Amino acid sequence: GSLDHPYALSTGTTAAELLKKLNEQRDIIALMEIKMKEMKSTIRQLKVTEAKLREEVRERDMMLSGAVARKKV
Amino acid sequence: GSLDHPYALSTGTTAAELLKKLNEQRDIIALMEIKMKEMKSTIRQLKVTEAKLREEVRERDMMLSGAVARKKV
Repeated sequence: GSLDHPYALSTGTTAAELLKKLNEQRDIIALMEIKMKEMKSTIRQLKVTEAKLREEVRERDMMLSGAVARKKV
Repeated sequence: GSLDHPYALSTGTTAAELLKKLNEQRDIIALMEIKMKEMKSTIRQLKVTEAKLREEVRERDMMLSGAVARKKV
């Protein structure tokens, strides 16, 4: 991963070049933050949907056990 | 957002300081990439669960419509 290769000062690297790279990385971080917010929102929505569907399954199971009980009477 | 405030060269900013900041940002990006991978995996898993639950609701609806049809006979 990129953690293994830190940037090192090489001869001829100017402060202006480092600054350019710094601003490029800053933009990447800002975009990743937006993407992560979107993903968090997606996860939250999917969990709401999951809870709703589990409740629907539970309701139908109750109706089915009622239908079976009536058949046995 | 941070996009509005790019880094600028100020007097006294050394290449070593810029380099330190650059490596800090690089580590942040690496950690964010790991976090995003985890979130992608969570989203994938939640979508599989959603599909499975929708199928379970469908199955029970079919069983219930069968039970109703039998009652009417």
